[in-house]
Amino acid sequence: MSTFDTFLAEADALLGPRGLTRDADLTAPWTTDWRGRFHGACLALASPADTAQLSALVKLCAAHRVALVPQGGNSGMSGGATPSPDGKQLLVSLRRMNTMGAIDVAEQRVTCGAGVVLQSLHEAAEALGLRFPLTLGGKGSATVGGLISTNAGGTQVLRHGSMRAMVLGIEAVLASGEVYSALTPLRKDNRGFDLKQLFIGAEGTLGIVTAATLQLAPAIGERVVIWAAAPSLGAARQLLHRCEETLPGAVEGFEVLPQPCLDHVLEYLPEARAPLATRAPWHVLIEAVAARDAPAGSDTDLRDQCEAALACALEDGVVLDATIAASEAQAEAFWTLRESVSPAERAQGPAVQHDISVPVADMPRFIETVSPQLEAEWPGTRAVAFGHLGDGNVHFHMIAPQGVDPATWYAGEAKAISARVHDLVTQWHGSISAEHGIGQLKRDELARLADPVALGLLRAVKSALDPQGLLNPGKLMN
Amino acid sequence: MSTFDTFLAEADALLGPRGLTRDADLTAPWTTDWRGRFHGACLALASPADTAQLSALVKLCAAHRVALVPQGGNSGMSGGATPSPDGKQLLVSLRRMNTMGAIDVAEQRVTCGAGVVLQSLHEAAEALGLRFPLTLGGKGSATVGGLISTNAGGTQVLRHGSMRAMVLGIEAVLASGEVYSALTPLRKDNRGFDLKQLFIGAEGTLGIVTAATLQLAPAIGERVVIWAAAPSLGAARQLLHRCEETLPGAVEGFEVLPQPCLDHVLEYLPEARAPLATRAPWHVLIEAVAARDAPAGSDTDLRDQCEAALACALEDGVVLDATIAASEAQAEAFWTLRESVSPAERAQGPAVQHDISVPVADMPRFIETVSPQLEAEWPGTRAVAFGHLGDGNVHFHMIAPQGVDPATWYAGEAKAISARVHDLVTQWHGSISAEHGIGQLKRDELARLADPVALGLLRAVKSALDPQGLLNPGKLMN
Repeated sequence: MSTFDTFLAEADALLGPRGLTRDADLTAPWTTDWRGRFHGACLALASPADTAQLSALVKLCAAHRVALVPQGGNSGMSGGATPSPDGKQLLVSLRRMNTMGAIDVAEQRVTCGAGVVLQSLHEAAEALGLRFPLTLGGKGSATVGGLISTNAGGTQVLRHGSMRAMVLGIEAVLASGEVYSALTPLRKDNRGFDLKQLFIGAEGTLGIVTAATLQLAPAIGERVVIWAAAPSLGAARQLLHRCEETLPGAVEGFEVLPQPCLDHVLEYLPEARAPLATRAPWHVLIEAVAARDAPAGSDTDLRDQCEAALACALEDGVVLDATIAASEAQAEAFWTLRESVSPAERAQGPAVQHDISVPVADMPRFIETVSPQLEAEWPGTRAVAFGHLGDGNVHFHMIAPQGVDPATWYAGEAKAISARVHDLVTQWHGSISAEHGIGQLKRDELARLADPVALGLLRAVKSALDPQGLLNPGKLMN
Repeated sequence: MSTFDTFLAEADALLGPRGLTRDADLTAPWTTDWRGRFHGACLALASPADTAQLSALVKLCAAHRVALVPQGGNSGMSGGATPSPDGKQLLVSLRRMNTMGAIDVAEQRVTCGAGVVLQSLHEAAEALGLRFPLTLGGKGSATVGGLISTNAGGTQVLRHGSMRAMVLGIEAVLASGEVYSALTPLRKDNRGFDLKQLFIGAEGTLGIVTAATLQLAPAIGERVVIWAAAPSLGAARQLLHRCEETLPGAVEGFEVLPQPCLDHVLEYLPEARAPLATRAPWHVLIEAVAARDAPAGSDTDLRDQCEAALACALEDGVVLDATIAASEAQAEAFWTLRESVSPAERAQGPAVQHDISVPVADMPRFIETVSPQLEAEWPGTRAVAFGHLGDGNVHFHMIAPQGVDPATWYAGEAKAISARVHDLVTQWHGSISAEHGIGQLKRDELARLADPVALGLLRAVKSALDPQGLLNPGKLMN
């Protein structure tokens, strides 16, 4: 019997038929990432039932030197959960570990297994007048473990922060199979540096997150969705500052897109209408919310406040025009426009996309400087930047020149453009991965561009915590 | 020449006369902690002028295997900045590195050298209509580097969090002398796990923090200080929940003390007066604040809201009596009562103090269960618990029986009591150090009581980042 056969026999005995499969029909959906960019294979698909089983499985892997690839909903953007194509890695699904504890309404928190799906968490919180404020496109499949391991972002980061800000406690299985258990949150605890931070954004390279205690927030009472036209990105940023000053704690979303981008969306969605008749260099989508339990005795009305802020911004020329969604349907229609930017841009032809960030204050200057620079370097391309102005997170697309052969373009010019975008972002003290993580997609770019001291620290911690290199090897770093 | 002599000659050449001294008159104030509990000695006191000098110094230390003890204001509570008594460690003061960058008012942040004193930071922020919301007793000497290295707490944690929450960027010199530089804050950055977290609360064992970019907050516009009498700790906790619901984002302080504690304070401060005529099991001090830039068009008045909340709490029996400070002077007088609890308790005779936390929801039950338990185990002692109910952070004092010999009691019974308190806190899933850190004071207790898996992680990261064990050895862990 080969080592793998021995290992598989022992794993099978440990996990039982529901816990281990090599059936290609069952493993196939999970060995390729959902966007079809990374194609892997696996030794087997393990689905442990609980932390104890996973702990025993990891011990077995350590003894047989079998590498593990943890996976949640397989909805990641960077191939972080796709095994290597050699079929030697064990794919470990956390999806069975989807127990959700009772929600503590008074403390506004809940303990979830790693396999709990974001949508289920939303629903459970909503049923009790609370909410989990992080949301993103893949909410129907993304799991708590994956959200933590990638420090997921989304559209609510401006007010609530990324996943890191929601994690109060963590349980993780280490490379040795030992269980690090710190699920009981303490508001104050100074017994050394904060170990749970090691597992947030580590993409399963330092340990496998098995459960977490998460912070919830009060449900939304009122929501006001605004569409505004701005004369420049600088003006849009001024508008953000004003909104944050006059509506403290209320601004949850602040998205920007340029006029051509909106035009493409309107072309792509024939039934959609422009929120404003005014054409402008930039359009801004703002979402402001008030908690359901508004302060007692408070006479504030969010909509009135928004109207006052916009009137003032109009008068000062910070916005050229603005409207407040008159109904929930109209608010949704505004958001649909924003969410259709990516598909609309794709419909324009081949494009290469970048999930980058720069310091918030530099974002207008970055876009205004870098876009013409890149268009000049690659004649015929068009730079389209849009996204979370409030977070300094730009979705930066470079659209191919008309009439190129997509395959040739992707294999050649697109790669060169990406490298250049990453160079420029690095020069601007930004990040080549704002919210999608590194995975395998950007691993080599990180190695090429990261500060060598930072890279040395990442690798030193990795070696210390996973000396055999069995936890998700080939992801995040080499 | 001995190794030390060679090292000192090279260090002297590197740092110059202002940067290195062996003069006992100059080093003496810094080799003993401010409370006089830990007495050390040092090879020399190094005071590098900037990060480059410190980097070169650490490289020199690494080459000569000389251990370093970083020190800020020497105002720590756990001996974390006091060198060992053998005189073989180099004491490294960060106090000369006290440059403060220009405050970015729009982004509400500032970059400070590690040696910037908290009080200076407060003053600089206030001058521009902002504030740095963390404050504590030692603010006249505590430095930014020390606050980060100990993840300092204080009285504003309830709303603003510990120091960790204020740190947006960090620069640190590593054990190799390399400089990890990440001072430019990005709101979103998912290039792996968050390296800056390693240096927060690490007590200088993983690197020496040299600078940080810190989050500021808007200045306080209105402040309302309340004194309330509560029938039980459970009722006090209910009051906290009501305040957080009706005054969202406004409650900055929520402190509790039992009646005997208040009686001791009034005895200790003969000119002070009880805020209420009512005697009650527990007294509560609440501070609520509104930002200076109150929302435009808002008619809310913090004082009215507080009055309404208290009227409701009185009606429901959640409080027995309550008063709002009528003036800034009275507000200060209320806080003086709270801040005099420790000295007043000390005036009662020998006592052993503990800085512990338990999950917030368990705090009332913890105090009510553990206090009589300990008093029964050590007849004649009295348990006094008070502090930050909102953070689950209890200052837990055990007062010696009347008439004991202090030296004998401290050497014997007090030690046994402390060990027992730490045992109980651990059983209650709490922390033996809520805000004061581990240093040398609690190092052995941490080793005795910490989860071995957590301790293994702390040690693995330490070995990885400081393989020669030269950064503040003997602190936090062995």
